[in-house]
Amino acid sequence: MNRLLLATLALAIALGIGGQAIAETSALPSWNDGAARSAVIDFVARVTTKGSPDYVAPAERIATFDNDGTLWAEQPMYVQLAFALDRVRALAPLHPEWEQKQPFKAALEGDLSTVIAGGEHALLELVMASHAGMTTEEFERIVQDWIATARHPKTARRYTEMVYQPMLELVAYLQANDFKTFIASGGGIEFMRPWTERIYGIPPEQVIGSSIKTEYELRDGKPVLVRLPEIDFIDDKAGKPVGINRHIGRRPVAAFGNSDGDLQMLQWVAAGGSQSFCLYVHHTDAEREWAYDRKSSIGRLDKGLDEAKARGWTVVDMKQDWRAIFPSD
Amino acid sequence: MNRLLLATLALAIALGIGGQAIAETSALPSWNDGAARSAVIDFVARVTTKGSPDYVAPAERIATFDNDGTLWAEQPMYVQLAFALDRVRALAPLHPEWEQKQPFKAALEGDLSTVIAGGEHALLELVMASHAGMTTEEFERIVQDWIATARHPKTARRYTEMVYQPMLELVAYLQANDFKTFIASGGGIEFMRPWTERIYGIPPEQVIGSSIKTEYELRDGKPVLVRLPEIDFIDDKAGKPVGINRHIGRRPVAAFGNSDGDLQMLQWVAAGGSQSFCLYVHHTDAEREWAYDRKSSIGRLDKGLDEAKARGWTVVDMKQDWRAIFPSD
Repeated sequence: MNRLLLATLALAIALGIGGQAIAETSALPSWNDGAARSAVIDFVARVTTKGSPDYVAPAERIATFDNDGTLWAEQPMYVQLAFALDRVRALAPLHPEWEQKQPFKAALEGDLSTVIAGGEHALLELVMASHAGMTTEEFERIVQDWIATARHPKTARRYTEMVYQPMLELVAYLQANDFKTFIASGGGIEFMRPWTERIYGIPPEQVIGSSIKTEYELRDGKPVLVRLPEIDFIDDKAGKPVGINRHIGRRPVAAFGNSDGDLQMLQWVAAGGSQSFCLYVHHTDAEREWAYDRKSSIGRLDKGLDEAKARGWTVVDMKQDWRAIFPSD
Repeated sequence: MNRLLLATLALAIALGIGGQAIAETSALPSWNDGAARSAVIDFVARVTTKGSPDYVAPAERIATFDNDGTLWAEQPMYVQLAFALDRVRALAPLHPEWEQKQPFKAALEGDLSTVIAGGEHALLELVMASHAGMTTEEFERIVQDWIATARHPKTARRYTEMVYQPMLELVAYLQANDFKTFIASGGGIEFMRPWTERIYGIPPEQVIGSSIKTEYELRDGKPVLVRLPEIDFIDDKAGKPVGINRHIGRRPVAAFGNSDGDLQMLQWVAAGGSQSFCLYVHHTDAEREWAYDRKSSIGRLDKGLDEAKARGWTVVDMKQDWRAIFPSD
């Protein structure tokens, strides 16, 4: 945000022009009028209006967003898996043994179904081979180079162009209302941090994710952090409230997800009572994006959909509720 | 910060009135004029002045502070050890076996030297017995109740009154210059978070520390995080850069410590080059506080002192450089 804009905003706040007043007319332009948009705007008004029984002080306005399928597309495979496969291909000349060894053989042949049939263990092997063994700075550069050039297999767009425009608006809207916005993703924390600030306006220190261990080392007198082939933390399902507590140390008042992997995060936030807000993005638009839910192996939304209905959480129907999906729409 | 002040500040920034102009006259009032105070003010001017070769954008102005011995007193024992001993005493009626079992027997008898002679293992046993087995919310209440009432064995003051006034001013000074201030302490993360915002102005999400594992659980349908008797992470020595990277994801430009336990954090920050600033607090004031360094079992500063001298890091001589030690002085 430039300084003059900041000053103008701050002055507007000081003069008592509340965020809601601005918000109700112009906020969330890519959201169609409807229950989902109203629920978001009502929630923000409720927790930001002084004197409201649900008023939340700015310091406690924490919102957590899942990433894959919530902020950007996750079909036909998680972006990080595409990255891992590309890395395995790039590293293959150094590993001739991979030509005969699964899951590397399948990865090199582009045989995704064999990779996936290998289950969690196969994926873990690919991740360790492609994500560990270098310093944190080296890995950051690898991610930056890849994300700047890699293209989605179906749309041929850069992955960072396949973020959801309505969600970008939602993040900005919450920030304009003094929310601190965090990502809480099952994806790798160091895979997201190099680009989340530029793309989402969410700085690295507000990114929570899965991680591998790192070790401090002096190399020729220069300190480095070396990435080890050992899982540190899986920020998914019941791990999400754990990761959120570890990083933030207080309960968010709003949480946004799209799959059963986000259910515990939403439960944890919902336990905050009437000040809390939970929202599921439901992928219903086969034409502009993808339609999937209860039976999908990626981003399955089954138990979560039932619980959302039972508890009155907001469910975004992408086809109905979003005027645009991607920034280019 | 109230809204009018925020607006005024934002306007001042927009009009190009830099933080330094305000700072140089009134900043750090409890610091005597001298090399340490000048080094801090010069550093802040260097990284906040646009056009300076060492200019750092506000988003990257990250500062990390050790806690024990850097922000508050750590003698004659770490505050958290006093807390653990009090908890063991409070829980003793539920554990008759402790009367015969070390290190609990020594803890209950106030025999600190036997506890300490038991080494790391004994301390770990006390911590696990006193810090695990409850939910995160229950533990937060226990800490809040204790910190509100417990008194320092020598001064009979509350521990939160034994924070260093010059360091409170330093934290505020950095914040006023758009630094994001973090704690990176060997102490328990959940032991600090309940009071750091009130005492230091550092919110829970900017506190990094040692931790035990937690587990998500539904109790009568209500989600809780249960604290397990299992170490998750030790945020000390080579663990500090690891913890900082895990939580922040970028290298701080300034780091403040007081012991060899902070050395790797300072090395990690110093590797950022001419934009970086490293400072050690040297406990030299036996009258107003305590004097200890190379041979102390608590807060030993030995290798760090040598490295600080060799590399030109700023070393605060508490006796010479600080006009006041505690807020009440």
